[in-house]
Amino acid sequence: MNMLGMFCVRTFSGLVGFRTATCVVRPLHSFPGITVAQIDEEVAKLLELKARLGGDDGKHQFVLKTAKGTRDYNPKQMAIREKVFNTIINCFKRHGAETIDTPVFELKETLTGKYGEDSKLIYDLKDQGGELLSLRYDLTVPFARYLAMNKITNIKRYHIAKVYRRDNPAMTRGRYREFYQCDFDIAGQYDAMIPDAECLRIVHEILSELDLGDFRIKVNDRRILDGMFAVCGVPDDKFRTICSTVDKLDKMPWEDVKKEMVNEKGLSEEAAEQIGEYVSMQGGKTLAERLLQDHKISQSKQACAGLSDIKLLFSYLELFHITDKVVFDLSLARGLDYYTGVIYEALLTQAGVAQISTEAQNGATSEENVSVGSVAGGGRYDGLVGMFDPKGRKVPCVGVSIGIERIFSIMEQKAESSAEKVRTTEVQVMVASAQKNLLEERLKLVTELWNAGIKAEVMYKKNPKLLSQLQHCEESGIPLVAILGEQELKDGVVKLRVVATREEADIARDHLIGEIRRRTSEA
Amino acid sequence: MNMLGMFCVRTFSGLVGFRTATCVVRPLHSFPGITVAQIDEEVAKLLELKARLGGDDGKHQFVLKTAKGTRDYNPKQMAIREKVFNTIINCFKRHGAETIDTPVFELKETLTGKYGEDSKLIYDLKDQGGELLSLRYDLTVPFARYLAMNKITNIKRYHIAKVYRRDNPAMTRGRYREFYQCDFDIAGQYDAMIPDAECLRIVHEILSELDLGDFRIKVNDRRILDGMFAVCGVPDDKFRTICSTVDKLDKMPWEDVKKEMVNEKGLSEEAAEQIGEYVSMQGGKTLAERLLQDHKISQSKQACAGLSDIKLLFSYLELFHITDKVVFDLSLARGLDYYTGVIYEALLTQAGVAQISTEAQNGATSEENVSVGSVAGGGRYDGLVGMFDPKGRKVPCVGVSIGIERIFSIMEQKAESSAEKVRTTEVQVMVASAQKNLLEERLKLVTELWNAGIKAEVMYKKNPKLLSQLQHCEESGIPLVAILGEQELKDGVVKLRVVATREEADIARDHLIGEIRRRTSEA
Repeated sequence: MNMLGMFCVRTFSGLVGFRTATCVVRPLHSFPGITVAQIDEEVAKLLELKARLGGDDGKHQFVLKTAKGTRDYNPKQMAIREKVFNTIINCFKRHGAETIDTPVFELKETLTGKYGEDSKLIYDLKDQGGELLSLRYDLTVPFARYLAMNKITNIKRYHIAKVYRRDNPAMTRGRYREFYQCDFDIAGQYDAMIPDAECLRIVHEILSELDLGDFRIKVNDRRILDGMFAVCGVPDDKFRTICSTVDKLDKMPWEDVKKEMVNEKGLSEEAAEQIGEYVSMQGGKTLAERLLQDHKISQSKQACAGLSDIKLLFSYLELFHITDKVVFDLSLARGLDYYTGVIYEALLTQAGVAQISTEAQNGATSEENVSVGSVAGGGRYDGLVGMFDPKGRKVPCVGVSIGIERIFSIMEQKAESSAEKVRTTEVQVMVASAQKNLLEERLKLVTELWNAGIKAEVMYKKNPKLLSQLQHCEESGIPLVAILGEQELKDGVVKLRVVATREEADIARDHLIGEIRRRTSEA
Repeated sequence: MNMLGMFCVRTFSGLVGFRTATCVVRPLHSFPGITVAQIDEEVAKLLELKARLGGDDGKHQFVLKTAKGTRDYNPKQMAIREKVFNTIINCFKRHGAETIDTPVFELKETLTGKYGEDSKLIYDLKDQGGELLSLRYDLTVPFARYLAMNKITNIKRYHIAKVYRRDNPAMTRGRYREFYQCDFDIAGQYDAMIPDAECLRIVHEILSELDLGDFRIKVNDRRILDGMFAVCGVPDDKFRTICSTVDKLDKMPWEDVKKEMVNEKGLSEEAAEQIGEYVSMQGGKTLAERLLQDHKISQSKQACAGLSDIKLLFSYLELFHITDKVVFDLSLARGLDYYTGVIYEALLTQAGVAQISTEAQNGATSEENVSVGSVAGGGRYDGLVGMFDPKGRKVPCVGVSIGIERIFSIMEQKAESSAEKVRTTEVQVMVASAQKNLLEERLKLVTELWNAGIKAEVMYKKNPKLLSQLQHCEESGIPLVAILGEQELKDGVVKLRVVATREEADIARDHLIGEIRRRTSEA
């Protein structure tokens, strides 16, 4: 402690001195005596000092909350979440996927250089000695690390887990700092566009089954974008940054996007105009065919490869019966660096569930094409696994990520506005009594039911009132009550009451389990 | 960057200067000009410098691994994990529990002061500006925070999620830094020992169903321990530390525990001897009754309250039919600070699955009583929620945590040594062809099957060999193959092959879905 106090004094005389001093900037390597270990020590001591100062300059008060941008899930939200997950997992399993899991944190360097500008949103763990760690930012990079580490060259897997981004949260719109991703990916060297088409089929199945209203799946190819940039005269080193600007077209009008290209990114007016023509194009297989004949874009080999694959993709989508929702859209760019081929994104085309239900009643369709944002996205990333392999061996991959938080928000709204109550337990029967001193008998009966695999509850009171036992059933949607009384015990029966109808019937104790099973088998 | 470089120079002249200087220690508050914001700035810049130095003094090389003490789960492990979770979740649901979820990190101060000495094992997040965060250490403290924050006074909930401890990993024995906890807790003001007894019933059900070999559930009460310490002459301020020493009895012989009490903790030889007599006692309801008559321990009101509750608990455990596995054991102490009443711990009493299976064949029982360690534990913590409530309002809680990682290890070993293959997908049928140019037909058929909810796969090749398609079925346990050929297409049939028996039958296309369902319905 003495050492620490002394140390801090010295450090701070340095720090405070700086604020008024001017001095010449010298490159770091002119301090050969400074080691990382010394820095670590310095940091630890400063943070210790900070803790002793009270963390926030003495204005300390305990706050009862979750961390910024995160939330708890209450039982009702969990019931909805479970339902959504089941739909998604069933779909992944229907398509033969296995599942894996990876740790919530990775070595920091595993994530380094994979996310471009977004890297600043990565959560780092405190350097407490040992390895430098970061929370995972998505499930794709850990998947690629897993494949390289285990030398796996083909797998079809899903992974449902939370990821972490220090982004500006917008929790009402389903944007959190901790959120779920539901990823499905196919790794392996296969014939072109077959796995890619299956990923789109999966998006289509999931969005249809979740019944979230109409949707659209936009498709494009990074090679088409790059080829288009090339023939429009974008310099090679500006491909990625112009791509980022194009990516804003779903939030900004073309005029603003063009301004950014010309004024901020230094593109020529002419090049921007040409890009503008292409990115306004939407269609299907025939658009791909037309562009393959386009005198300008057909000059790019890359673009032609992409266009041929889009053509092939659409022929498979026809066999999969999903072309009704899929659009080839040249404005789709997507943010992440690692895509190398086909990219796609699914959007709900209705403005939200509240509106949808009103509109359905009125027959109005005014808001029908207002996008509520992306609910799924993905693409092909043939180079990512190679970044982890010591010999750079590539494993081609294509995948899709379902943006589940926005879907939760919609399902929650839907549940709120619906008359149907969301059950948070699956209890089939409540073991109750109308009279006093029957705790032992209730515990005996509930044990019999548990032994038979029946989901059953008792109240944790010696002498609960019948009314409060029945109320609990109403509140939590328990369909049946097995009521014990002196008379029933004498007669060897149990009074089985249906909560909804209040009907009661005496059931012989021997038949009770069968009767409960029969009555709850539809549920 | 210029600013940073300059700053570092100044800081380091301070730092380097210190190493040779001697100076007087002055209390921190004599530097009123230093703020936490300045410390934050200083830390950020030092860490930036560290990053620029290469992180580990230039000896940098990329390592392809997961973080220390963590692991990936491959598909086989996930299949086993899913099975174990299903058993546990079914049990929790059978007992009427809802589920909640909380974020993986909490405000650091939420965890502060809850874990005693173990607090040093908490993972902190890097201070990147904003709140100070830590990864959750267990699910109990977040649960208590959730109850206080939402003013919930009664709930029966389970929570299955990963928790984080910077402990020394022992991965072969199932001890990880990232690991699952499966918690079941009952919060609310109820009549004594009814919820406590249900928690024990749940442990009994789960361990029986998982079929891990024989087990024992030890039960004790913190009030009995404290009362015993008091009557044995342990000073009040040594209760917790002596409790920690008693906790080591499952790993150390009594002589060593006694030595620690006397030599390290400064207890009198006589007090230690008296404790030694009590902690060797094991029994059931009658032991509790006997101790209530014990001239010494009955002098402690606390101990008597605990003993009466143990008596009552055993009467409920009899009704629940689980006294065969439950032992009242005065040596059980448990580590965590927050327990206030009944505590319990479940142990497998066989040395491991490999031995178990051999022994079963030989009829030998030599290793039967070797403990393989705790697989579940819990107790009553009536004060924890009150620590979060601004007005200190208490919510009595009791709960249990299933130590799932050790169970996974055992189940994995079991799966390894078993002849039965673990399936990692649920695919019912593979759509295959023996001839070339039938990709389109395969895609059409698999679409029909997906539409009907059948779990089906095709190979992602234009012209795969029949042999490789059949091999894939063998490897991943797919029971059926639907084979298409020119002749079958002409005849409007599909050849359905049973992989295990190699039997084949032509099925009319219209009947295919029904036939697949019929044949896979047992699975």
